[in-house]
Amino acid sequence: MGADNQQERLDASWVVGFVDGEGCFRVSINRQPAMSLRWQVLPEFRVVQHERDERVLQKLTGVFGCGSVVRNHGNRKEFRVRGLQNLTRVVDFFRKHPLQTTKQKNFEQFAQIIELMQEGQHGTRDGIDTIAHIAWNMNRQLKPRYLESSETIR
Amino acid sequence: MGADNQQERLDASWVVGFVDGEGCFRVSINRQPAMSLRWQVLPEFRVVQHERDERVLQKLTGVFGCGSVVRNHGNRKEFRVRGLQNLTRVVDFFRKHPLQTTKQKNFEQFAQIIELMQEGQHGTRDGIDTIAHIAWNMNRQLKPRYLESSETIR
Repeated sequence: MGADNQQERLDASWVVGFVDGEGCFRVSINRQPAMSLRWQVLPEFRVVQHERDERVLQKLTGVFGCGSVVRNHGNRKEFRVRGLQNLTRVVDFFRKHPLQTTKQKNFEQFAQIIELMQEGQHGTRDGIDTIAHIAWNMNRQLKPRYLESSETIR
Repeated sequence: MGADNQQERLDASWVVGFVDGEGCFRVSINRQPAMSLRWQVLPEFRVVQHERDERVLQKLTGVFGCGSVVRNHGNRKEFRVRGLQNLTRVVDFFRKHPLQTTKQKNFEQFAQIIELMQEGQHGTRDGIDTIAHIAWNMNRQLKPRYLESSETIR
């Protein structure tokens, strides 16, 4: 790691504390008529901040070695990680450095979904059913549309 | 530090990350007719969480060696530190472990007010004037009522 990277590095414990406060693990299941099963599982890890703190979000791309910083709403920006390979890195990071708040439970369910996806479960009806139920439990109030669609109710 | 305290200890970097996300430094100046200068400077450090994470807030009382956990609004609790002696500990902590977001600027102004109070400046009209202007700058939108009161405009 070069001197510049060293300087840019954020302590892992700081990242855990910041994510305990501001991080969000979400899994949505979106209708995609073009796909064979018609539903796509989209897991996502996000940290939102006022644009004045974009610099800290940019540093997170270095810490996780993935993700990008995009506009959220209005004057807010978000550090966002999508994609199974990238999210596997995120899961590995928080397995090594566990969250201290009850967000840890949320993370555990997120990690469970990432593991099911690593096994390719999101490519089968039974797999998506399992994932949808974990996601519902994880996101609390929000029942995935997948579980209410006439297409998928069995 | 006993084994129990050791286990309860939160990493300083975690605390900085968490406060970068969730912490709040505020200074209000309240009208207190019973006091000789009629205005009281009330600095406060707060971290608010859903009550499900009260345990983490309780741990902060151990980290800072001061403060208490009280009801905020509805199902939210807050870790709150008041009092010059206690807030001096908080300032010392964040001088040693600087915040990484722009909240650091906020903290610097807060620390400046705590230092003025250590010198007893909150006991003089000129001192409160100085403190009120720093507080106004710090809290951004909120102009202290002190600066708009017919009693204090010069």
